Amino acid sequence: MILLFPEDFVSESVVLLNDYRAQHIQTVLRAGVGKMLQVGMLDGALGSGSVLSIKSNEVLLECCFQKEVLPRPRLDLILAMPRPKVLKRLWAQIAALGVNRLVLMNASKVERFYFDSHVIEPDFYTPLLVEGLQQARCTHLPEVLIEQQFKPFVEDQISVLFSNQPKFLADPLGEKKINQLSLEGACPVLAIGPEGGWTSYERTLLQAYGFELVGLGSRVLRTDTACIALVALFNALL
Amino acid sequence: MILLFPEDFVSESVVLLNDYRAQHIQTVLRAGVGKMLQVGMLDGALGSGSVLSIKSNEVLLECCFQKEVLPRPRLDLILAMPRPKVLKRLWAQIAALGVNRLVLMNASKVERFYFDSHVIEPDFYTPLLVEGLQQARCTHLPEVLIEQQFKPFVEDQISVLFSNQPKFLADPLGEKKINQLSLEGACPVLAIGPEGGWTSYERTLLQAYGFELVGLGSRVLRTDTACIALVALFNALL
Repeated sequence: MILLFPEDFVSESVVLLNDYRAQHIQTVLRAGVGKMLQVGMLDGALGSGSVLSIKSNEVLLECCFQKEVLPRPRLDLILAMPRPKVLKRLWAQIAALGVNRLVLMNASKVERFYFDSHVIEPDFYTPLLVEGLQQARCTHLPEVLIEQQFKPFVEDQISVLFSNQPKFLADPLGEKKINQLSLEGACPVLAIGPEGGWTSYERTLLQAYGFELVGLGSRVLRTDTACIALVALFNALL
Repeated sequence: MILLFPEDFVSESVVLLNDYRAQHIQTVLRAGVGKMLQVGMLDGALGSGSVLSIKSNEVLLECCFQKEVLPRPRLDLILAMPRPKVLKRLWAQIAALGVNRLVLMNASKVERFYFDSHVIEPDFYTPLLVEGLQQARCTHLPEVLIEQQFKPFVEDQISVLFSNQPKFLADPLGEKKINQLSLEGACPVLAIGPEGGWTSYERTLLQAYGFELVGLGSRVLRTDTACIALVALFNALL
């Protein structure tokens, strides 16, 4: 699927692509004039696009869209900032699995320099999120927030950003299992700790702000594995 | 956790380590004499090991083990052989999530040269599986089978290797969702296709041999993301 943005449209139904998507159409999909491609409108409907012309790095598509728009993912994810190398690989996977809002948060076991990395710059991660959406054939771009201060964020913003949403904290101490939760109709918030886990101060503060501990069994997983496993589990139950 | 093998024992309770585990104890855990480390016996119990001595690359541990042995994972996984680069990253994650037997199988959309890669040699993948077990604090090493021929494997071996086990085929066409399956007490077999999916011939043949289609929703995931998500989901339901 090729994800389309409002600024791509040169008329009501025709888009002009001249970036990595035009390249992808030519080199990976090897599409010629007349070829039909799957397209999707950012935060909107899926549809199809017929190739009108291809020259050098410009592709024109004539598009039509389905009436029905798939619902936005309902899971909000708070992730203690992972190592930049790990996060680099996670962007596309998080978008593909389906997350509504993603907060990258500080925690005691997060190294300060992680926040200096270019991997949290929108110019770097947006193409990776788009890649994940295109792979998964979804159109809803996760909203990304970067929070470098743990305590002020939890104390001042959690209740505002996530009011009335059920909140869960993934933690090896959590005895409640995720598949025992009843999440029907809910828009849950899931917080996943850093490599090395939450400190007891962090765990206690998050619990005071309404987070309930949930566990994934006795296995201790790497952050990236845990993140994919947990998002998949929550989305399967929603 | 440090995983111990029968050949590590120099007496009933003392092990001598002189490989990557000895290095890990010195450089990552920075353990000195008297320090207690978590250990686990291959396919056996968890326990603790006290450092008796450390010199250059040799570590002696005095170990004792819990009586209870955690049960072996119950999920068998058949995975269409992924690209070597992807598989390299998956070994540790599969071991950490918990899989009983892993079959790497051929399929129409698997490139032949994938099977020439060193990533399917035991000397290459065993340390990665051990790394995953140590991370997850589990002791059960997955059994690995490599099957380069799709049809003979399905027709002659599936029923022998997996007799009486419920069998599932992850496929976007699957309308039954995984969290609707009742897997209590079962030892299921899950087959995951290649990047690009199963061909209809493969799908039909596997169905004829007892595999039921299951889906993960409308999203199309990359093999490695799908693999982690599906194994986590099945294990959560078991």
